[in-house]
Amino acid sequence: MVPINFTEKFEQIHEYWTPYIVGELNGQLVKLAKLKGEFVWHNHAEEDELFMVVKGELTIEFEDRAVHLEEGEMCIVPKGMEHKPVAPKECYVMLFEPKSTTHTGEVEHELTVKEQKWI
Amino acid sequence: MVPINFTEKFEQIHEYWTPYIVGELNGQLVKLAKLKGEFVWHNHAEEDELFMVVKGELTIEFEDRAVHLEEGEMCIVPKGMEHKPVAPKECYVMLFEPKSTTHTGEVEHELTVKEQKWI
Repeated sequence: MVPINFTEKFEQIHEYWTPYIVGELNGQLVKLAKLKGEFVWHNHAEEDELFMVVKGELTIEFEDRAVHLEEGEMCIVPKGMEHKPVAPKECYVMLFEPKSTTHTGEVEHELTVKEQKWI
Repeated sequence: MVPINFTEKFEQIHEYWTPYIVGELNGQLVKLAKLKGEFVWHNHAEEDELFMVVKGELTIEFEDRAVHLEEGEMCIVPKGMEHKPVAPKECYVMLFEPKSTTHTGEVEHELTVKEQKWI
């Protein structure tokens, strides 16, 4: 039960596309990540995923559309939905997803982080 | 899969201590609320609860301490923990909690909202 300060946490993140855990509740994890560039197409078979833009802008591409998010906006990606996050410029996001979620879904990619860490 | 804009959602909230649902994922709800004044002491027997301050400041009183949150800070209240949110000035918060959670726990109070609404 301590305050979790997003600004301080983001200062500890030095890689893109590597989510760090900052909180856990009810089997769900709150994660922070810095994004820049294009991620990989993937889906999470059993898990919905929340993206909230804390700083910058993020586009989430889907097969039939794209959703553009600005600071102070969020979007929930339903389970099973193929998506690809794209951040032309550096972007800070908060993610909310079940403990079981890996960030590239079933896709094994050089960006896949196998062991997720707390900050 | 539409952008959920916090500023626009908060403009639709005209009462204090009444959380409105803005998103659902994995059996959890994302809620927004405007707070001002003192809430009631309560706990949620089976549910952890996340408070994130979007605007203003919030103090969460516990039996043996108080946690002060500023804009951009969050705190997770573990299940079963008695707590009382206090906002001397108007404060905007995002809450994250299971669908089953009622905001006053087992406590029936004039502030208890029985049917939670989406905005």
